[in-house]
Amino acid sequence: MDKLLEQSLLYDFYGELLTSHQRSIYESFVFEDLSLGEIAQQEGISRQGVHDLVKRCDKTLREYEEKLHLVQRFSDMKERIEQIQTLSKDPIQPDTLDRIRILSAELLEEL
Amino acid sequence: MDKLLEQSLLYDFYGELLTSHQRSIYESFVFEDLSLGEIAQQEGISRQGVHDLVKRCDKTLREYEEKLHLVQRFSDMKERIEQIQTLSKDPIQPDTLDRIRILSAELLEEL
Repeated sequence: MDKLLEQSLLYDFYGELLTSHQRSIYESFVFEDLSLGEIAQQEGISRQGVHDLVKRCDKTLREYEEKLHLVQRFSDMKERIEQIQTLSKDPIQPDTLDRIRILSAELLEEL
Repeated sequence: MDKLLEQSLLYDFYGELLTSHQRSIYESFVFEDLSLGEIAQQEGISRQGVHDLVKRCDKTLREYEEKLHLVQRFSDMKERIEQIQTLSKDPIQPDTLDRIRILSAELLEEL
């Protein structure tokens, strides 16, 4: 997975578990694409301090995913729901509802 | 919601974020239905110590839910998936696939 996409998914699920100071700097770096130097100036800390904080946030977010697997769980579910949606849009076939029934049963087992 | 059901749902999502010591005592109390005294004896700590630890775990798990809302999110999704399953099992109606399409679109928006 592309690093920025991974950071963005992890942040989406677990960002609330970071401190507001961490969130502010992480967002500036990952989402607003500011440089370490720009953030350092803005926050009144060293460039190295910003670098270390972003690394630590990456690590913290990855550790939450290793424990809770939410990005993985949601992405598996998303795939099945997209299949249901495609089946509901395509011209109906003899097995359309059977396939939807199986997909929804699999989803319910994962919940 | 029934307290035991709430504890069990919260534990299901966030239990991995407790320490193994907390998990062991919390499971004995909530899921194996042992008394505070029995757990105290088993773990070699005081009855009050067990009581405090269980309360602290309850609080920690609730704080995670306040931040991440996973129990709520999954329960909303479950409801919609159950509706899809019912629609796929019932005799087909003219609007069956339309309703499945709308429900799956709502689900994808929540993911």
